[in-house]
Amino acid sequence: MKTVLIFSGGMDSAVLLYYLRARGDEVRALSVDYRQRHRKELDCASGLCARIGVEHRVADLSAVRQFLAGSSQTDESIEVPHGHYAAENMKLTVVPNRNMLMLAAATAWAISVKAEAVAYGCHAGDHAIYPDCRPDFTEAIEKAMMLCHFTPIRLERPFLHMTKGQICKLGVILQVPYELTWTCYEGKERPCGLCGACQERMEAFQFAEVSDPLC
Amino acid sequence: MKTVLIFSGGMDSAVLLYYLRARGDEVRALSVDYRQRHRKELDCASGLCARIGVEHRVADLSAVRQFLAGSSQTDESIEVPHGHYAAENMKLTVVPNRNMLMLAAATAWAISVKAEAVAYGCHAGDHAIYPDCRPDFTEAIEKAMMLCHFTPIRLERPFLHMTKGQICKLGVILQVPYELTWTCYEGKERPCGLCGACQERMEAFQFAEVSDPLC
Repeated sequence: MKTVLIFSGGMDSAVLLYYLRARGDEVRALSVDYRQRHRKELDCASGLCARIGVEHRVADLSAVRQFLAGSSQTDESIEVPHGHYAAENMKLTVVPNRNMLMLAAATAWAISVKAEAVAYGCHAGDHAIYPDCRPDFTEAIEKAMMLCHFTPIRLERPFLHMTKGQICKLGVILQVPYELTWTCYEGKERPCGLCGACQERMEAFQFAEVSDPLC
Repeated sequence: MKTVLIFSGGMDSAVLLYYLRARGDEVRALSVDYRQRHRKELDCASGLCARIGVEHRVADLSAVRQFLAGSSQTDESIEVPHGHYAAENMKLTVVPNRNMLMLAAATAWAISVKAEAVAYGCHAGDHAIYPDCRPDFTEAIEKAMMLCHFTPIRLERPFLHMTKGQICKLGVILQVPYELTWTCYEGKERPCGLCGACQERMEAFQFAEVSDPLC
């Protein structure tokens, strides 16, 4: 099956990439450049794809940045909040409608290469904060993807009800090179260890009982 | 009510702009630059907005063009088909998933300015050819728009079951300056009169029993 993966360069979508290949999919990977604060993830994405020979494209949607107000990930005047991922202040990290934009671009690519599906790595840990990672959103957008063209595009989201810890554990079995992934919202040289994304990653590695090669 | 209008610069969205203002909406207009063959519509869009003092932005999504293969409107090697709009060969003019992309960008803008709705001018004449103008697609994508963020965004599509003739007639009453709109898929100096878009526009003006200032 041909699948277009939304690949941020983070650990969830990296595990998804390995998972799709493990089951035999012909995968293409799409990253989106929206001038995110943690642009470093784009380099990780292309590095990992180059290593395993997966076609990788970066769509520059930075023109939409003008509409993505009020997020610490697109607005340098807003500091990345520290603390736990599920806390109220993590709402600051939400980029308005980012996932619909990425899914729309991935769906266009899927149509043009006659792929059957788009895949993205939303998981249970995202649900508390990110509306566009919740089951009801994924159902609605899949329905739109099935209807938007002459041939339907399915939305694969196999990790929807898994925790990040479970994903991490699966990735260990699939031999995902976690040293080539990036999670921290700050996007500096080393992970900050303080933002919600870092904390969630730490908890995931603790659950999987392995050490994070980035730390 | 605050509304973000997807404004192509064509006659349907121009009538929708006048309709929304007639009922008192505070309208912002969004055009999308995907390096379409008929880029002239973008100049028409900004000209019309400037005339009536409506905020107008153009989002450059040309990076997505790499995924929009196989359409006469994005691929210069494919000629614009001539003939009637509802004919099979008009499928060549379909830009894959264009409307989901535009709606995603408009929804992001709507969220950032705390608007309640996004409006777009799909109509009954589009249904035969464009899957992403059909009632079931608009329902699905509206559901996704209602769920994609903390506050729901509605999708206004008041012309969904109207013909282009009916829209044209309404626009005459609303005093839409049709000379500032652009419809032809060729995007040359004058309308070609031969493409499906031109033919449909001619039929609409015939139905409305007025002459087209562009002809």
